[in-house]
Amino acid sequence: MRAEIVSIGTEILLGEIVDTNAAFIASQLPEFGIDLLHVSQVGDNPARLREVFARAWERSELTIASGGLGPTEDDVTREAVSAVLGEEVYIDEEQRALLEQRFGHRGAALVERNMKQAWLIPSARALPNPRGTAPGWWVERDGHVMVLMPGPPQEMTFMWEQQVAPRLEERASAILVSHTIKTASLGESQVDQMLADLLDTTNPSVGIYARRDGIHVRLSAKAPTREEAWRLIHPLAEQVRGILGSTVWGEDEDTLQAGVGRLLRDRGMTLAVMESATGGAIASAITDVAGSSDYFRGSLVTYATDAKIAHGVPAEVPLMHGVISRETAEAMAAAAREQLGADLGLGLTGIAGGDEVEGQPPGTMHIALTDGERTEYQTYSYYQGRDAAKRRATTVALDLVRRWLLGV
Amino acid sequence: MRAEIVSIGTEILLGEIVDTNAAFIASQLPEFGIDLLHVSQVGDNPARLREVFARAWERSELTIASGGLGPTEDDVTREAVSAVLGEEVYIDEEQRALLEQRFGHRGAALVERNMKQAWLIPSARALPNPRGTAPGWWVERDGHVMVLMPGPPQEMTFMWEQQVAPRLEERASAILVSHTIKTASLGESQVDQMLADLLDTTNPSVGIYARRDGIHVRLSAKAPTREEAWRLIHPLAEQVRGILGSTVWGEDEDTLQAGVGRLLRDRGMTLAVMESATGGAIASAITDVAGSSDYFRGSLVTYATDAKIAHGVPAEVPLMHGVISRETAEAMAAAAREQLGADLGLGLTGIAGGDEVEGQPPGTMHIALTDGERTEYQTYSYYQGRDAAKRRATTVALDLVRRWLLGV
Repeated sequence: MRAEIVSIGTEILLGEIVDTNAAFIASQLPEFGIDLLHVSQVGDNPARLREVFARAWERSELTIASGGLGPTEDDVTREAVSAVLGEEVYIDEEQRALLEQRFGHRGAALVERNMKQAWLIPSARALPNPRGTAPGWWVERDGHVMVLMPGPPQEMTFMWEQQVAPRLEERASAILVSHTIKTASLGESQVDQMLADLLDTTNPSVGIYARRDGIHVRLSAKAPTREEAWRLIHPLAEQVRGILGSTVWGEDEDTLQAGVGRLLRDRGMTLAVMESATGGAIASAITDVAGSSDYFRGSLVTYATDAKIAHGVPAEVPLMHGVISRETAEAMAAAAREQLGADLGLGLTGIAGGDEVEGQPPGTMHIALTDGERTEYQTYSYYQGRDAAKRRATTVALDLVRRWLLGV
Repeated sequence: MRAEIVSIGTEILLGEIVDTNAAFIASQLPEFGIDLLHVSQVGDNPARLREVFARAWERSELTIASGGLGPTEDDVTREAVSAVLGEEVYIDEEQRALLEQRFGHRGAALVERNMKQAWLIPSARALPNPRGTAPGWWVERDGHVMVLMPGPPQEMTFMWEQQVAPRLEERASAILVSHTIKTASLGESQVDQMLADLLDTTNPSVGIYARRDGIHVRLSAKAPTREEAWRLIHPLAEQVRGILGSTVWGEDEDTLQAGVGRLLRDRGMTLAVMESATGGAIASAITDVAGSSDYFRGSLVTYATDAKIAHGVPAEVPLMHGVISRETAEAMAAAAREQLGADLGLGLTGIAGGDEVEGQPPGTMHIALTDGERTEYQTYSYYQGRDAAKRRATTVALDLVRRWLLGV
């Protein structure tokens, strides 16, 4: 099935917003065995919108558009589709009732131009929009399908999941299922080498991707049904997990901080942090997870050296070994654990800025983790700017906690 | 001048990357008085690429493309352009020499297929790419211009600024200059009302936008030269600043944390934080600014109540008034100041999760700032999920510090 995406809105052409809708829809289509051949953005301009829709209707079996379904004069998507298909719009009574009901709830007056949102054409069915007032359209005629969805991403993605994806799945001759296995502490080429024997298969297939939070292995399989696709993926996933072993920290939508949180909760353990170069980024990542107060005691962001000392780092440690050192990181881990009364203490000292400090290059990080008896330590140096340095240090530190908890 | 953007790369059509290049280029074009009418994405497919370029060459005076300039067989952008224009490619000796020099530096072997990156056609001039190996093309014929740039955003934006923007400026009949004034602690409708008398002007024009970090006022002016455009904007900017007064915290690329940092450094003052619901996000924002160690002492991320008490919050305060209270925030501010030896202490306690705590709704935040004598306090409640709650609380807290430092 040949498909194209059309994103509508003058704000996209002014560069005021990034078109994340097209990327989202594009990422979903392979699942249904649909080939995406074109993506285009067009402003809320009647003539150009008609031109784009006419070409799409002619060359693609499936056109998926978002945007321009609001109540204002600027929103001309429905008008353009009805013009291209030569069909008259009418007010659908069911949609009108829904609109009145919704405006009634809000206590807002339903003005005449809102009535556009109750329009349909003979070839269109309305797609409900519980997150907004503009229903979508599912237009079908002569073997062509055109889907119209609202522009706001939270309305569009909900409509996609509830309304559009199930209809596409019904029609799909093959379903593609993908499953991602996430690893840390291995390089891309290491993973490539470890999985070398599996890389030649085509269905299921294996792909290796370097991402912000480590290396991801994506397994994909195509089959007539979702269940059959999963049956193809399952044994391969077991094999991959077996080979990568304890470097695997999660799958699909998992985040590293959520994985670490699960492990801590499972073991009934608590964590405390003393961090310097990451400046609170480790704590902020951990507390992005709902329920993190169950296992996270807090972080001492001791940016100044004397603040480290005031919070339990013995003064002679940075003096003797330098602030940016293994010894200081270990002392910070111990101090975090004691000061915040946690089972585990994590300490991080390093250089987030672009200059050398104490003879060590930008991006040098010293990370230590202790339970009061055993202390693990890791160091590395990597610099691509301040943000990247903080982000990568956070990932490495969280992975150190993960491996400690797994005993690997 | 009618323009269009073409973004090239199969990874965009698979939804693996979001097309930020198109958004960047789109945001730059208004500056040169160029009207952007179309944006499209296409995979690395010779036939479809030729189709897209042929249509672009015909309907647009200016086509700006990025992607597909690498050395591999997949990269067919140059081939498509030469086919559409009916011009033969040849190896340009200057580009060949540059390529050899660059590969020599890297100690990598220059293989035959890299030689594609030295190609030109008669109507094309090479655009240097100091950040990568693929030069761009500036193609000009019959009153049409087509620009080819590499796909990696850091290479593309550098080439844009160094090579493309100056050429467009030379040709522009009018230049649009925009200047953004950023405010916090005011709502969109308040700003709209305060600036009501200025909103009718067209050149310069005034636009009001709600952004993550507050309300932005954008002033834009069109004139034959950049200098004349600035002459139109300048008096209006003075007027807007006068009206908005001390709510203005920055302009153009400024961030709130950088503005607060400048104020602290100017006054020779230091800041320390004790934060709970933001979980380190305030500290992380402050330390995103290079040189923040000059004025930032650190943050005590006391997620657990007894961690607050262990770090200087008197036990009876949360007990008597609740953890989520003005009194606890004030005690946290005082404790941060004393424990970390700073001039100013900032305390924040609140609810980042989606559940009510101590009878207060999700998103409630209590924020206090003290210099040991005077204490400022602010509270608000706003909930759109955990991330948004942390982000907004960080903005409000930083703005509280800013206003304190300005005495407003």
